[in-house]
Amino acid sequence: MNTDRPLRYARSHRRQFVSELQEFIRFPTVSAQPKHAPDQRRCARWLAKHLRRIGLKTIRIFGTDHPIVYAASEQISRQPTVLIYGHYDVQPPDPIHEWHAPPFEPVVRNNYIFGRGACDDKGQMFTHVKALESYLKMNRKLPVNVKCLFEGEEEIGSPQLKPFLVRNRRALAADVAVMSDMPIPGPHHPAITYALRGGLSLELEITGPRRDLHSGLFGGAVHNPVQALCEIIATLHDRKGQVAIPGFYDRVRKWDLRERQYMRRAGPTDEQILRDAQDEQAWGEEGYSLYERTTLRPALTINGIAGGYQGPGGKGVIPSRAVAKLSFRLVPDQDPNEIDGLLRTHVARVCPPTVHAYLRTLSRSNSALIDRSHPALRAAALAYRKGFGGDPRFLRCGGTIPIVNTLQETLNIPVVLMGFALPDDHIHSPNERFYLPNFFNGIATSIWFLAAAGAMQRLWQTTAERSIS
Amino acid sequence: MNTDRPLRYARSHRRQFVSELQEFIRFPTVSAQPKHAPDQRRCARWLAKHLRRIGLKTIRIFGTDHPIVYAASEQISRQPTVLIYGHYDVQPPDPIHEWHAPPFEPVVRNNYIFGRGACDDKGQMFTHVKALESYLKMNRKLPVNVKCLFEGEEEIGSPQLKPFLVRNRRALAADVAVMSDMPIPGPHHPAITYALRGGLSLELEITGPRRDLHSGLFGGAVHNPVQALCEIIATLHDRKGQVAIPGFYDRVRKWDLRERQYMRRAGPTDEQILRDAQDEQAWGEEGYSLYERTTLRPALTINGIAGGYQGPGGKGVIPSRAVAKLSFRLVPDQDPNEIDGLLRTHVARVCPPTVHAYLRTLSRSNSALIDRSHPALRAAALAYRKGFGGDPRFLRCGGTIPIVNTLQETLNIPVVLMGFALPDDHIHSPNERFYLPNFFNGIATSIWFLAAAGAMQRLWQTTAERSIS
Repeated sequence: MNTDRPLRYARSHRRQFVSELQEFIRFPTVSAQPKHAPDQRRCARWLAKHLRRIGLKTIRIFGTDHPIVYAASEQISRQPTVLIYGHYDVQPPDPIHEWHAPPFEPVVRNNYIFGRGACDDKGQMFTHVKALESYLKMNRKLPVNVKCLFEGEEEIGSPQLKPFLVRNRRALAADVAVMSDMPIPGPHHPAITYALRGGLSLELEITGPRRDLHSGLFGGAVHNPVQALCEIIATLHDRKGQVAIPGFYDRVRKWDLRERQYMRRAGPTDEQILRDAQDEQAWGEEGYSLYERTTLRPALTINGIAGGYQGPGGKGVIPSRAVAKLSFRLVPDQDPNEIDGLLRTHVARVCPPTVHAYLRTLSRSNSALIDRSHPALRAAALAYRKGFGGDPRFLRCGGTIPIVNTLQETLNIPVVLMGFALPDDHIHSPNERFYLPNFFNGIATSIWFLAAAGAMQRLWQTTAERSIS
Repeated sequence: MNTDRPLRYARSHRRQFVSELQEFIRFPTVSAQPKHAPDQRRCARWLAKHLRRIGLKTIRIFGTDHPIVYAASEQISRQPTVLIYGHYDVQPPDPIHEWHAPPFEPVVRNNYIFGRGACDDKGQMFTHVKALESYLKMNRKLPVNVKCLFEGEEEIGSPQLKPFLVRNRRALAADVAVMSDMPIPGPHHPAITYALRGGLSLELEITGPRRDLHSGLFGGAVHNPVQALCEIIATLHDRKGQVAIPGFYDRVRKWDLRERQYMRRAGPTDEQILRDAQDEQAWGEEGYSLYERTTLRPALTINGIAGGYQGPGGKGVIPSRAVAKLSFRLVPDQDPNEIDGLLRTHVARVCPPTVHAYLRTLSRSNSALIDRSHPALRAAALAYRKGFGGDPRFLRCGGTIPIVNTLQETLNIPVVLMGFALPDDHIHSPNERFYLPNFFNGIATSIWFLAAAGAMQRLWQTTAERSIS
């Protein structure tokens, strides 16, 4: 399939693409805030109309509050199918006063477009939409079958996505999924993420006396929930930086020297990671580089703690309760449910009888691992080389994107994590922005990816169109 | 000295005394809030005028923002001298909406007077003022020399009191000090406190990365200040409930069997203490009753802790810092400065090199111990028996009243802790109140105490009047 004409179209319509992205950003689609439900609905309708206008065939909107927008090209049975995932909802813009311009009135300045969602994920998902438009307007057909799945509640944990995927498993059948919702190391350093850690987050509450007590009158005679919580937390790691919950490492996959050597060549050095962290001191499991500690190895972080008096000065009180937020990052082949159970057993064992411990599970998600040698990842590498003028690195990421595992497990397909954001795009922060050269290179990369995916069709299973519900 | 006429006066002027106490409470003397400085000055002038009106001779006001009001009777050299201490400042009334009536518009209902300061300490200090009035109006002279020292910043730690005492050590010379600023077990169960624990409170801050980090990207590679803080706190106690800071118990005074047997007879049982705490489980050092653990033995309480995310749900963050509030309750012969040093040495030793620890001392005060067999305490016991119709118990208290040690050390005199408050008077809480029968019995007790103190004069050293500056 010839990419010349779509690439030419994309180049000559840059101004229009930016102006459409601005229009898209203007919808304040804050999924966490119920007052924005009407904005979400308006945005979903706008997006559906837009997808029809560029030439996609089947367009549908599912749900009412945070609708899923689905669109598909005309499906040709001998072509492979690419599922494009993205999300049009955004993080709350707070703290609002730190924005230089209103978050939902996007402005273009110094080669950046500023606004909430400019990067995460309206701008990045729009690269694929504009790539599709470039094909459909010039060639009138696509090198692959395309199914677009754009959701409106990624920022609140995608509660309806999994049931939707399960319900429409056959209709959504595809050979590969692609999503652009992550940073690459730099504008000339593209990267493909092939591994993500899973997650398990919980709240641990310790309760003691029924009310806060005077620490003079009762200090020494009543167990202090803050002290007990600290003592329990102190049992969760050993002195070598390992998680000390019995059985925690039992299923952690061992990697051979070849993979570790590959990672050493491809990944960041300890120095780079510490520089990114603006921290001077490394910590953690012996025998692993920092890149390995944050990707190959699981971790447990205390995200927050609270109990008793927190104001200025002191207050003579034995608090009646204390709470900590815990989150695990899990790796293959750890099972979040099993780790949840191991933690509960451990806490029950170490919690002294003089206080009570309560564990509440907040979320669980599996780790994801994508075969670097899969043809789809090779297609993505080729596309990046063409679109960004450089070979992408294949990197593991220590973070968690639950959707990736959900797509993999539910549809049984690899997911290409093809990011176009930059590390300093202020994602989730004030003055979020998207670097316009990355927007344009992203569109070109998507054009190349669709072409390369189409050319590799024989390596993949093909799927026929099925109706969606 | 005949107490009949003063007691009769006190009985026949009850209505007037309550009305004057209401007038006294109406001044919103919240020392913690600078906006109330004018109210403090007005109240100090009112009090000075009141003391002159009842017949005291030397009246002086020291300072401007939270003035000290000093008043003395005519000093007769062959009489012993009693220093009456009290404070006219009060705690903030917050949370204001929980009051059934406005905190500074005192009302009398069901034998209680309600209002901020009704009990702590305007009502209790007023018992002595009204006892003095009862003598001066009926007998025209007192059985002892009296010096009144009423301060206006007890609730903010009495910053100017110690320098004032040191500066006027000779002018304030007395044989005994008396103060009424504590509860007794019940309206028919008076008690004299003969021991108080000292205090040392500090803030322990642990810092790590310069900013909060993404726990996915950096979890496992960077030390978490919350985790490090918990691990440090976990080293402060051993498994037996003892403080594990090396040297902490070195100076703790050992008590013989006789004192411990006395305490067992006089003090509350474990069951009573747990009932007061509304807690079902005892905790702490083995080999000591709960009464001993909270009085004879020192304690360390974590009063509060804070770090990282504390809102609903979870947040994937490695916090950049965490803080805990620590307070020690110290016993004879522990020195708060020495314990401060021991803690600093210990924290420096256990703090891992991957984070930084900062300790800030918030306050220090010595423990206080008053000889139960001192004639002044026997005079107080006699007075309670007459005023309340029951023998007082001699109790140790686990709390800290820094002024007691300050008076003891600076003036080298015993302090009689003669409380009239009840445990459910809501001190420092909304709807503070004072039980009027205790107010009237308190006045009678003070009348008896002054008489008994006068009769015991030969046991004490006598002092001559010196000018005050």
